[in-house]
Amino acid sequence: MTIAVYLPLKDKTDWWVEMLQSLLPGWTIAALDTIEDPASVRYAVVWRPRSGDLARFPNLEAIVSIGAGIDHVLADGDLPQGVPVIRTVGADLTQRMREYVALHVLRHHRDMPRQLQAQAERDWHAIVVPVAPRRIVGVMGLGNLGEAAARTLAGLGFTTRGWSRSSKTIDDVETFAGSDQLDRFLSDCEILVNLLPLTDQTRGILNAGLFSKLAMGACVINCARGPHLVDEDLLAALDSGRIKQATLDVFHQEPLPADHPFWDHPAITITPHVASQIDAVTGGRLIAANLKAFDETGTCADLADTTRGY
Amino acid sequence: MTIAVYLPLKDKTDWWVEMLQSLLPGWTIAALDTIEDPASVRYAVVWRPRSGDLARFPNLEAIVSIGAGIDHVLADGDLPQGVPVIRTVGADLTQRMREYVALHVLRHHRDMPRQLQAQAERDWHAIVVPVAPRRIVGVMGLGNLGEAAARTLAGLGFTTRGWSRSSKTIDDVETFAGSDQLDRFLSDCEILVNLLPLTDQTRGILNAGLFSKLAMGACVINCARGPHLVDEDLLAALDSGRIKQATLDVFHQEPLPADHPFWDHPAITITPHVASQIDAVTGGRLIAANLKAFDETGTCADLADTTRGY
Ligand SMILES: NC(=O)c1ccc[n+]([C@@H]2O[C@H](COP(=O)([O-])OP(=O)(O)OC[C@H]3O[C@@H](n4cnc5c(N)ncnc54)[C@H](OP(=O)(O)O)[C@@H]3O)[C@@H](O)[C@H]2O)c1
Ligand SMILES: NC(=O)c1ccc[n+]([C@@H]2O[C@H](COP(=O)([O-])OP(=O)(O)OC[C@H]3O[C@@H](n4cnc5c(N)ncnc54)[C@H](OP(=O)(O)O)[C@@H]3O)[C@@H](O)[C@H]2O)c1
Repeated sequence: MTIAVYLPLKDKTDWWVEMLQSLLPGWTIAALDTIEDPASVRYAVVWRPRSGDLARFPNLEAIVSIGAGIDHVLADGDLPQGVPVIRTVGADLTQRMREYVALHVLRHHRDMPRQLQAQAERDWHAIVVPVAPRRIVGVMGLGNLGEAAARTLAGLGFTTRGWSRSSKTIDDVETFAGSDQLDRFLSDCEILVNLLPLTDQTRGILNAGLFSKLAMGACVINCARGPHLVDEDLLAALDSGRIKQATLDVFHQEPLPADHPFWDHPAITITPHVASQIDAVTGGRLIAANLKAFDETGTCADLADTTRGY
Repeated sequence: MTIAVYLPLKDKTDWWVEMLQSLLPGWTIAALDTIEDPASVRYAVVWRPRSGDLARFPNLEAIVSIGAGIDHVLADGDLPQGVPVIRTVGADLTQRMREYVALHVLRHHRDMPRQLQAQAERDWHAIVVPVAPRRIVGVMGLGNLGEAAARTLAGLGFTTRGWSRSSKTIDDVETFAGSDQLDRFLSDCEILVNLLPLTDQTRGILNAGLFSKLAMGACVINCARGPHLVDEDLLAALDSGRIKQATLDVFHQEPLPADHPFWDHPAITITPHVASQIDAVTGGRLIAANLKAFDETGTCADLADTTRGY
C-alpha cells in the first residue's frame, strides 16, 4: 500500500515524503512522479496537483490536501469522482491565521502605512484614528479560520461582523448569512477580511460591486485565495479612493509575477502566501493522524464536503 | 474659583479651556498664562508645565495631569509640595494602548519590516516565524496599561510575562516582581514592551545591560517615556545585532529633532507619541468627573501616589 506525494517544488515533495515516512513507518511513501505501480497507490497527499495526476491511480481511497482549502484539488478536470478529500487544518493553522488577521487589521486601523511614510519624511505627524470599538470590521467566511479571526478581532475591541453560508452564533460578533444579508454585512464596514473558500459562488466576489457597498475608503485584506479578487477592480477602487489600502497574501498566479502592478502600488501590502503556512512538522502529524483514522474507520475529522466544494 | 490650564501648544490649551468650560459650567476655566489673580486658582490641569508654573498659585488644591504619567509634573523643581496629583486614565486610553502593543508586537513577531523590504525588492520571499505560543514576550510595568497589554498579548496566544514592583496574579501571564526577579523576567524574552512610569528607579532602564539579558536578536518596544531608553545603547545594540528591531513612540525630546539618528535607522520604527493619546472629548469628561469628585469629597479614583512617584 502506497501513499503518493506531490507538491510543485521537488525539494518540498522530498521533504514531505521523508516526514510522512517517519510518521507512518509501516506504509510506503513515494514522490508521485516516481511511482511505477499506480495500482498500489491508495492515498495521495498533494498541494496543487497537475490535471490528470490523480486519475492515474485506479485504487485511490482518499486525497489529502496539504492545506485548509481543497480548491486546488477540485480544479483538476480529470479528478477521479467520488474519492473523499481530506483537508489539513489544526490549532497551528488557526493560530497563525489569527495572528495574521489581527496584525493586518490593526495595521490598517492605525494607518501604519501612512505613519511609516511620515517617518520616511522625518515628519512628526500624529495620525489620529478612532478607538477600535468605533471601527466596524467584517470577516467573510466563518469556518475554522474565519470564526477564530472574528473572535480575535472582537477580543481586540473591534465592532466585529461575520458572514457565512449558514447562520452562526458567535459571542461578541454580529453574524450575517447568505447572499440576502451580504449588503447589510458590508454596509459601513471599514476593514474587510476575506476567509472564504474558493468555490464557483465565491470566485471574483471581491469586485467593484462589493467595494461600492463598504464604507468609503475602506481597507481590504485577502488571505483566502487569489481568484476571490478581481485585480483590475481593486486597482480602479484604489485609484478612485473607494478603497484606501489593501493587504494581499494570495494571488491569481503565485509567486506573483515580477511585472504585476500590485508589487509597487503604494496602497497595496503584499505578503507571499504566508498568512498561515502549514508548519511541516505539525502538518505532517495532522496528516498522518487523519490517514490512520481514515484507513481504520473509513472516515476522519477533516473530511471535506466535495459536493459543497469546501 | 478658577481652574488654570496649560499645555505647551497654545491652540491645544485653548481647546482644553473650551472643552472643560462646557463640561464644568459653574467653574471659571482659563489659560494659565492669562491668569491675573493667582490666589483664585484652586486647580491646575496641565501637560508638561514649565518649572515654576504651579508655584505661582498659593491656594492650589490639586494638579491634574492630562495623561497617565505624572513624571512631567514631578519634573518641576519648584512644584508646590503636598499638593495631590490626579492622573487621567480610562477605558479609552487602555483600549488604545492595547491596540498599539498588539500591533507592534505582532509586527515584530511576523517580521513585517523585513517582509515590506522583500516587497520593495519584488522578492516573493516567505518569512517563516514560530507560532506565537512559541514566542516569549515581556511587559515591563503592570499598571492600568501594562496589565491590559499583557492580557491582550496572552489572548493573542503569546507566551506572556509581566514585571512590576509589587507582585501580581494575572491569568495566563507569568509575573515577576522587583529587581531581584528582573533577570529571570528578561531571560529568553524575544519581544519586550516597556510600560513603566518614569521615576528615579526606571530612568535609563532600557540600557546595554538589560539588552544583554534578552534573547539574542530581541525586539524592543518603548511606549512609556523617552528617558527610559539610553539612545546610544540602543544604537550600539542594533549595530551589533544584540537587538534586531525597535519601535519607539516616545523620545528624550519631542518632537524628535529632525537630525536625530533614529529617524532613518532601518531597524527603528518611529511613531510620534500616538500609542495612546487622550481623545480630548473622553479625556475632558474624565478630568471633569475627577475634579468634581475631588472638589466634593477631597479624593477621587485616579489620585497618584506622589511619594512613590507614579
Ligand atoms: N493564505 C493562507 O495562508 C491560507 C491558509 C489556509 C487557508 N486559506 C484559505 O482560507 C479558506 C477558509 O479556510 P477554513 O478552514 O476556515 O474553511 P472552512 O472551514 O471550510 O470555512 C469556510 C467558511 O466560508 C463560508 N462559505 C462558503 N461558501 C460561502 C458562500 N457562498 N457564501 C457565504 N459563505 C460561504 C462557510 O459557510 P458555512 O459555515 O455555512 O459552511 C464557512 O463559514 C480556505 O478555503 C483557503 O482558501 C488561506
Ligand atoms: N506613549 C503613550 O502614548 C503613553 C500613553 C499613556 C501612558 N504612557 C506611559 O505609560 C506609563 C504607564 O501607565 P500606567 O497607567 O499603566 O501606570 P501605572 O498604573 O502607574 O502602573 C505602573 C506600573 O509600573 C510598575 N512599576 C513602577 N515602578 C517600578 C519599578 N521600579 N520596578 C518595577 N515595576 C515598577 C508598577 O508596579 P506596581 O503595580 O507594583 O505599582 C505598575 O505595575 C505612564 O507612566 C506613561 O509613562 C504612555
